[in-house]
Amino acid sequence: MDEKNPYLVAFGNRIKKARKELKITQDDLSLYTRIDRSYISEIENGIKNPSLTTILTLAKALHVPPSKLMQIFESKEVNDE
Amino acid sequence: MDEKNPYLVAFGNRIKKARKELKITQDDLSLYTRIDRSYISEIENGIKNPSLTTILTLAKALHVPPSKLMQIFESKEVNDE
Repeated sequence: MDEKNPYLVAFGNRIKKARKELKITQDDLSLYTRIDRSYISEIENGIKNPSLTTILTLAKALHVPPSKLMQIFESKEVNDE
Repeated sequence: MDEKNPYLVAFGNRIKKARKELKITQDDLSLYTRIDRSYISEIENGIKNPSLTTILTLAKALHVPPSKLMQIFESKEVNDE
């Protein structure tokens, strides 16, 4: 059974969406961010748990305010209580 | 010379501020989040680079939407370009 963390999957999907909106590849994003392409792929697939600085680096490269990236958790986050 | 990452320092200060607004101690926060108190202390002092799930856990325990925690980077983030 796939034990992926739903938050990491949601974040990964959000990164992939932002990247596709810019019509850039993982290689391009890797070049801009100096984050290894395979690590980017694992983040997009909800496998890796990125650090704060990695989140900020991705947000900047994808031209998405960091707070906007995190909004995906709000509805889920708030309703969990 | 203190080589702290300004983003980590800013985030740590934001967590400390939110915790003090709730008038809770690091021990309390550690209890709620199951994050080790010394790790919380290192986050608040800008020494540790917390992961996405740790950020979400802290946001939830501090009753601050994750996006709001990240807004501290916006003004700095946007003006850096």
